[in-house]
Amino acid sequence: MIKYNNKNFVCDLDLGMELIRGKWKAVILCHLNEGPKRFLELQRITCGVSQKVLNEKLKQLQDDGLINKKVYDEVPPKVEYELTEIGKDLFPALNHIQQWAKKHTKTID
Amino acid sequence: MIKYNNKNFVCDLDLGMELIRGKWKAVILCHLNEGPKRFLELQRITCGVSQKVLNEKLKQLQDDGLINKKVYDEVPPKVEYELTEIGKDLFPALNHIQQWAKKHTKTID
Repeated sequence: MIKYNNKNFVCDLDLGMELIRGKWKAVILCHLNEGPKRFLELQRITCGVSQKVLNEKLKQLQDDGLINKKVYDEVPPKVEYELTEIGKDLFPALNHIQQWAKKHTKTID
Repeated sequence: MIKYNNKNFVCDLDLGMELIRGKWKAVILCHLNEGPKRFLELQRITCGVSQKVLNEKLKQLQDDGLINKKVYDEVPPKVEYELTEIGKDLFPALNHIQQWAKKHTKTID
């Protein structure tokens, strides 16, 4: 058993999956791999998911150390989200899942 | 938008993640990569998850074409679950997530 944030996980994979669980996290991370993005860009990518839900997902990804929130000292204020090194390190797996789904969905549909 | 099983997905990654969503699917697939396993072995690996939940996950993985249920013509009856080629094809991504979590959880804990 592995303990993380007061939850128990049966193995590292179980914990790793927890960090990207839910409908949007993997998609957000994959798009941030192209470069930093602003909130509205991420909302467009996630097809208009509510501000509340997107904020929640971004906050969890920050808390888990996968992304950074960059606040620029500008007027009007500019905020961007970018991958941390830990977030970047996950990309090959997300890319594999994307290619895998593309290859096999015709077979399994 | 991609349509699969009457659900909409914003991209291939979104669909791919859907096929392994939930607490146990990735863990089950990872263990089946070692070779076919019986129901009770999978229940042990998933730390005693209920029969109902495990059956449900295995059924979904079968329906999505990631695993096969092999029923042997024996007495007493013997049933094993094994990865399909599609399921095997996903393993490098799951392995990457496992190694990634192992490497980074000390950093993010």
